[in-house]
Amino acid sequence: MANSKFEYVRKFETEDRCLPNCWIIVRVDGKAFHKFSDLHKFVKPNDDRSLNLMTKAAETILQEFDDIVLAYGQSDEYSFVFKKNTKTYNRRQSKLMTNISSLFAASYVFYWADFFPDTKLQYPPSFDARVVLYPSDQNLRDYLSWRQVDCHINNQYNTCFWNLVQVSALSPAEAHGRLKGTLASDKNELLFSEFNINYNNLPELYKKGTVVIKEQEVTSVQREIPKTDGSGTEEKTFTKKRPKLVALNVDIIRDTFWKDHPYILESS
Amino acid sequence: MANSKFEYVRKFETEDRCLPNCWIIVRVDGKAFHKFSDLHKFVKPNDDRSLNLMTKAAETILQEFDDIVLAYGQSDEYSFVFKKNTKTYNRRQSKLMTNISSLFAASYVFYWADFFPDTKLQYPPSFDARVVLYPSDQNLRDYLSWRQVDCHINNQYNTCFWNLVQVSALSPAEAHGRLKGTLASDKNELLFSEFNINYNNLPELYKKGTVVIKEQEVTSVQREIPKTDGSGTEEKTFTKKRPKLVALNVDIIRDTFWKDHPYILESS
Amino acid sequence: MANSKFEYVRKFETEDRCLPNCWIIVRVDGKAFHKFSDLHKFVKPNDDRSLNLMTKAAETILQEFDDIVLAYGQSDEYSFVFKKNTKTYNRRQSKLMTNISSLFAASYVFYWADFFPDTKLQYPPSFDARVVLYPSDQNLRDYLSWRQVDCHINNQYNTCFWNLVQVSALSPAEAHGRLKGTLASDKNELLFSEFNINYNNLPELYKKGTVVIKEQEVTSVQREIPKTDGSGTEEKTFTKKRPKLVALNVDIIRDTFWKDHPYILESS
Amino acid sequence: MANSKFEYVRKFETEDRCLPNCWIIVRVDGKAFHKFSDLHKFVKPNDDRSLNLMTKAAETILQEFDDIVLAYGQSDEYSFVFKKNTKTYNRRQSKLMTNISSLFAASYVFYWADFFPDTKLQYPPSFDARVVLYPSDQNLRDYLSWRQVDCHINNQYNTCFWNLVQVSALSPAEAHGRLKGTLASDKNELLFSEFNINYNNLPELYKKGTVVIKEQEVTSVQREIPKTDGSGTEEKTFTKKRPKLVALNVDIIRDTFWKDHPYILESS
Repeated sequence: MANSKFEYVRKFETEDRCLPNCWIIVRVDGKAFHKFSDLHKFVKPNDDRSLNLMTKAAETILQEFDDIVLAYGQSDEYSFVFKKNTKTYNRRQSKLMTNISSLFAASYVFYWADFFPDTKLQYPPSFDARVVLYPSDQNLRDYLSWRQVDCHINNQYNTCFWNLVQVSALSPAEAHGRLKGTLASDKNELLFSEFNINYNNLPELYKKGTVVIKEQEVTSVQREIPKTDGSGTEEKTFTKKRPKLVALNVDIIRDTFWKDHPYILESS
Repeated sequence: MANSKFEYVRKFETEDRCLPNCWIIVRVDGKAFHKFSDLHKFVKPNDDRSLNLMTKAAETILQEFDDIVLAYGQSDEYSFVFKKNTKTYNRRQSKLMTNISSLFAASYVFYWADFFPDTKLQYPPSFDARVVLYPSDQNLRDYLSWRQVDCHINNQYNTCFWNLVQVSALSPAEAHGRLKGTLASDKNELLFSEFNINYNNLPELYKKGTVVIKEQEVTSVQREIPKTDGSGTEEKTFTKKRPKLVALNVDIIRDTFWKDHPYILESS
Repeated sequence: MANSKFEYVRKFETEDRCLPNCWIIVRVDGKAFHKFSDLHKFVKPNDDRSLNLMTKAAETILQEFDDIVLAYGQSDEYSFVFKKNTKTYNRRQSKLMTNISSLFAASYVFYWADFFPDTKLQYPPSFDARVVLYPSDQNLRDYLSWRQVDCHINNQYNTCFWNLVQVSALSPAEAHGRLKGTLASDKNELLFSEFNINYNNLPELYKKGTVVIKEQEVTSVQREIPKTDGSGTEEKTFTKKRPKLVALNVDIIRDTFWKDHPYILESS
Repeated sequence: MANSKFEYVRKFETEDRCLPNCWIIVRVDGKAFHKFSDLHKFVKPNDDRSLNLMTKAAETILQEFDDIVLAYGQSDEYSFVFKKNTKTYNRRQSKLMTNISSLFAASYVFYWADFFPDTKLQYPPSFDARVVLYPSDQNLRDYLSWRQVDCHINNQYNTCFWNLVQVSALSPAEAHGRLKGTLASDKNELLFSEFNINYNNLPELYKKGTVVIKEQEVTSVQREIPKTDGSGTEEKTFTKKRPKLVALNVDIIRDTFWKDHPYILESS
């Protein structure tokens, strides 16, 4: 029973290499997380356990892929940035997005109990993923700014919405109606006057989301090594560099972040 | 802080719709499962627990996607067949492959303990996925034949290999050397003469892999309903059709399977 | 001065092979032919010289590419059908569409004077092209039907429009207004009652467009060849098969055409 | 006869927009020009008539497409550079490459007699085309350098080859053999010692190829216009800017060219 007769079917596969010299972003996004968060009784508008579990899953991805230089997450989504000239999976889009989406989902389930010790996971969640290419550094930064502004806009809306529902006992429809057409300044005013909440004082995690980067950790190690003249050993200090994951809840729109971590845009 | 300034970055996303009127196959494949199976002490050459867990994960996919008409799996891979004119995710390749790869991986972790009650999962596994299109029914059947022949070839080789290692105490290198250049008939002879194994008597699960299909389950329900003349109620029998998953370890290369389940190729 | 330093730029090229086992259609379309036909004073609504020149250019394409089994043209467009499993240019879309669009345009200019002996070509025209894939024979026939129905609809409209303008001396705007919202039957009635034109009697070239196919021409050749017994020569008749282009103005929507030329759909 | 029944076939067309913010290059390439140049008795190794006709065809393209900022040609090929953010044809690859390849080919035929007054064109030539994207300015310059180095390498080889054939009366095979394995310096030495040719003194057209750019031509026009106080007219000078095509045979590898024409890389 030879396989050669059927192997022609491999020719129906298509190549999907990313254009070289572009930043590659893979963004994962929870599927139907509205229903998922209701069923698992997520705290609204922000559930720290879920946000931290998302970041834990993201860190698994960063540890697996050397060429990811930054990840940014908020709500039920996470974006991963590969350096411009990564050769990971020969830049094949299918490989990149499916390995990341599946490892992300598997990690989410794997670490669930660490973050939700008192809540049983009811069913396995899924995350879609897509690949987007950005030719210039400015495009990349604008993409990340787009996601971080989105985080802020959603958080502001949701904070108003859930206070109206939970504190003022409005129905969801009433709360939506109340917020319809309001500006950012209106919403801040509403939070302050009705709920005594100063939006600016809310946790940075909720307002900014989470950026995970790899900092070079330099550690010193003392080792006993043979002397060059053969007369026994001597103690010597070695320095070891290792990437160390650091999760920050900071502004990534303004220049400061990029000046403080110049190696991110310089990676290639 | 308006988002509109950054929203132009959405235009960098590309459309990846599948050509209409083609069978869409999504195949998931375990990443680095050699290492994974060693670490979790899988029985060689075939571990029933793992194969059944794979099928359980596949069934989760079939339940989630109405338009998948068949799945075929063996070893650490599973192929899912969408009907030719499915509109699922508007036929977008990224959506199809990432939702399936992530749900498959999440399910594998979610159901792990049911199949490996005595083995702790050491880390979250990942599965890549790809989309392949087949224009004709013959192409589709040839694809599935290709995978089933592959199952048989690998199983035959692995059964020889692991018997040589486990029973005859050869080293892996010696076992590979012994098998190099042998034909199918040589391997069957080796199994019989050295290990008294009749290859044909091995479990169909190992030789054929697993095909999962949806059979229409017709159930009868008795219901008390109002009489049309208003004079009280009467008992009536209703029939309900529901797709029911059926996992089979059968030949899908010959015509028999396709004649017995004609609705698969007729779906459109 | 080595080129190797720069040759990395080749890696930015992408592969664009057509999915195997699909009919490949390349359709060329005149760019800005409204302006072109005005400037060169084409007879309206149909200019035989232009239609015949289009078909001459199409025939150049059919002669160049063995694997094109049919071409269909009307107005300033022509569609070329490659057999399902053609290996031409390794099925690369860019190669297929640019070689055809450029040869078509070059031929149009090359043969211009043969069809427009009294009209000087004012500038070189251009033709865009696209590749479309059709998995099934029905899809292919529906594509060709779509184009032939389009031919009929446009011809009917244009015949009304130009009679209103040329015979009834309506302005273009008035003619458009008069035709707005009319059905096919209204237009036939208009042609008959106002201009004494029976639409059905118009030339098939205008109503049906042109389909070009390759018929096997069998020719007999008499040759003097040596006798097998060495006793001089004898005359023998040889038959030679050659594809011969045939241009028809016939219905390609109904089954008749396809039954009369079964080898077209059987080509693979 | 409604067309709607068949119109579903349009859904089989695919979108092929170029990634935004990348330089778009369309390169056209003569098909089978070896045969074409032999048949039309092109002067070897370089035929000025052909090179100038190529540039004439290229200029037609530059005049037609406002967003092309530079073209570079040599032998039977020409590359056209669209500015990074061109919206031409909505960045659709098929439209870009087929309109350019067909207009190029049509122009080549259209202007043939102007450049080859004594040679009848035997058949219409064709040119394939491809689209390649380059994310960075450096990538773009490296692409153009690659083509210009290629021009030089081929010219040097061909100059040696044809002198060996035409002057020394070697057969083509002998000439190839003689040149096999020679370095650039060997070839220059050969030209000088055997044919008294100083390679550096050959025309720049042959060594460098042709770059066509658009320079802003500023013209002054005197116009009689009404005075603002209504007391008659006064003469006033207006300046008009128009892009003017300039064809150069210069080095485009070193910085000088790019510093002299900074607006090329600044276009966006």
